[in-house]
Amino acid sequence: MGLLTDFGAGSEHVGALHAVIAATCPGADRIDLAHDLVAGDVRAGALVLARLAPLTPGAFHIVVVDPGVGTARRAAAVGLEGGGALVGPDNGLLRLAAEAIGVVAAVELHPLPHDAPATFHGRDLFAPAAARLASGAPLSSLGTPFDPATLVMPELPPPRVDEGLLAAEVVTIDRYGNIQLLAAGADLAAAGFTPGDRISASVTDRPHPVTVARAFGDVAPKGMLVHVDSHGLVAIAVNGGDAARRIGAAPGDVVTFTRWAVTGG
Amino acid sequence: MGLLTDFGAGSEHVGALHAVIAATCPGADRIDLAHDLVAGDVRAGALVLARLAPLTPGAFHIVVVDPGVGTARRAAAVGLEGGGALVGPDNGLLRLAAEAIGVVAAVELHPLPHDAPATFHGRDLFAPAAARLASGAPLSSLGTPFDPATLVMPELPPPRVDEGLLAAEVVTIDRYGNIQLLAAGADLAAAGFTPGDRISASVTDRPHPVTVARAFGDVAPKGMLVHVDSHGLVAIAVNGGDAARRIGAAPGDVVTFTRWAVTGG
Amino acid sequence: MGLLTDFGAGSEHVGALHAVIAATCPGADRIDLAHDLVAGDVRAGALVLARLAPLTPGAFHIVVVDPGVGTARRAAAVGLEGGGALVGPDNGLLRLAAEAIGVVAAVELHPLPHDAPATFHGRDLFAPAAARLASGAPLSSLGTPFDPATLVMPELPPPRVDEGLLAAEVVTIDRYGNIQLLAAGADLAAAGFTPGDRISASVTDRPHPVTVARAFGDVAPKGMLVHVDSHGLVAIAVNGGDAARRIGAAPGDVVTFTRWAVTGG
Repeated sequence: MGLLTDFGAGSEHVGALHAVIAATCPGADRIDLAHDLVAGDVRAGALVLARLAPLTPGAFHIVVVDPGVGTARRAAAVGLEGGGALVGPDNGLLRLAAEAIGVVAAVELHPLPHDAPATFHGRDLFAPAAARLASGAPLSSLGTPFDPATLVMPELPPPRVDEGLLAAEVVTIDRYGNIQLLAAGADLAAAGFTPGDRISASVTDRPHPVTVARAFGDVAPKGMLVHVDSHGLVAIAVNGGDAARRIGAAPGDVVTFTRWAVTGG
Repeated sequence: MGLLTDFGAGSEHVGALHAVIAATCPGADRIDLAHDLVAGDVRAGALVLARLAPLTPGAFHIVVVDPGVGTARRAAAVGLEGGGALVGPDNGLLRLAAEAIGVVAAVELHPLPHDAPATFHGRDLFAPAAARLASGAPLSSLGTPFDPATLVMPELPPPRVDEGLLAAEVVTIDRYGNIQLLAAGADLAAAGFTPGDRISASVTDRPHPVTVARAFGDVAPKGMLVHVDSHGLVAIAVNGGDAARRIGAAPGDVVTFTRWAVTGG
Repeated sequence: MGLLTDFGAGSEHVGALHAVIAATCPGADRIDLAHDLVAGDVRAGALVLARLAPLTPGAFHIVVVDPGVGTARRAAAVGLEGGGALVGPDNGLLRLAAEAIGVVAAVELHPLPHDAPATFHGRDLFAPAAARLASGAPLSSLGTPFDPATLVMPELPPPRVDEGLLAAEVVTIDRYGNIQLLAAGADLAAAGFTPGDRISASVTDRPHPVTVARAFGDVAPKGMLVHVDSHGLVAIAVNGGDAARRIGAAPGDVVTFTRWAVTGG
């Protein structure tokens, strides 16, 4: 049973999910996939889930990044090829992982009683549903079927690519200050940037020199590089340093790469 | 085996508890209930434990929020109805959960040798005791019985309630900026505040308008609401925002709600 | 299976290790030893591992604090007396724990294919290797033997000790603000400082009075003390407060203790 939330590592909300699952499905191996997602960052959650869920074929996952809790968003369970399932809000969080693994069916969870006081959907709706599935309950017993093709797609703006130009949105920044962008290695190549090139990266007006590289060791200590990271996405890093701090990037910012122009006087 | 501490998620101190329990009681399912409590915040720990421990009937819990380690506070194990136990400092941390579940007996743990060098009570006293209980040792083998009625009560100042007035202390603020108060839904009603009312919330002099609501979706995006949260406590939140930042509240502050006065000129 | 990293608690990188191990070695008990190490702080990781690994005899540990990933540092698995192993980069992280437990053999891991795209050594190299060992694979099947005596030693500058003088480097600061130094209790005694002494602690020019103590309770509330902590190291703490904030210390700083000089006018 994978757990992925934006509740914060070590929070009582994560503890509540664990406790409900442990009580309902004692034998389940619970795996903390991630809990430090930026609060409400559905698309980052969707990408992380799509990377991690395929690592444990057949597993059930409870996934809660739910800024719209209490609104009309659908509460869903998605049955996967190979036997597992994803359980969480259908707000864009589930679709990429579902597509990565393959979907066999989807249901909208039976709602909690309308007058239930003091509800916490993770604890009261999603965790019990996931635990029931992991205990062998059929997906159809949990809710009303819907067409998996209607699962909400997360907002993932594609990069802008041209000869000598790549502009892409920052999707995550990790604790080392590595800046992950919504662009794939192929986009970097399509812009004509190849390893060894010295190019320019801008978030605001000020351009920063970066080297297109394969690995951190390809640049000098404290040198900045753009590379294809371990998830296949374009990322900016500083060898032994913090790229996000150096160029002042935050999730949602657009980074623009162009050829480095040496302007003469 | 539940673990609840203020050691910080991912800290080596939490790792030490896990390692001791894993080595002593290999089959035990260890559940991280919470580790991100404000350092030394015994009453928040007491409330979290009272919410989470009942979710796993029969479980053993090691609980360490212990600003008075090394002082005269009692080290305790409390046997619970249904077969589990709570193990930790008797400084107010254990009583609410013990009462919520029901107590059958309590012992003061046999102390560590007085001249033991370099002791860490979580690792050296509480974890071994909890692991022994989980392995089947009787409570009486761990220490000297005491009257559970003498378990220390945490300091939980009651709210001040009057017609058109509710004043209550902030007990926790979560990572979303939701402000949880030491007041129950009944207190909100007793003050005469009902869903839909627009009232005033003040921490310092400046009043902020808030809407009494049942759910986040009852107010506009970025609107502030006061509601009964998923733990049954009165809480202030911003729909899609951070209430603590907006009104500048911190744990221990008192929030005062009054009717919203439109003062004319 | 212990996991110790600087990935950050709740990060997807920790989740990836768990997922790989869960998929490869389903029965393994995974223990989060620590994940909140200062990014790239190899020597702190080495000390934490040397403290925690001995608590679970026979266990396998995956250990990743790897600022030099992608450089020439050796990727290693070290077989331990009693049957467990340490798997991680040989950059100073492994040696202290290996010596604490006892080494039987060491291998340099077979490298990943040179042209493997998008590699994450924790997920792609160390976790699979550790899971194979935990599943019963012999150490020799994972790589090329090397002499364990060549395991890299972490940089741990010894304290300077003289009569009335102890100068030692700050190695870690925990979330309570306790300052742990690279000095042992014996060094404090060798400097002639004994419990009850009031001495001076300086990071910069400004001296702070501290009391040599056995326990927090030996000083008044908010009083500062120097003591031998639960890991046997000299540490500075404030009873009910934050020592690091009070004296402005950070990892890597040198703290100098001298006798407290009352200068008259």
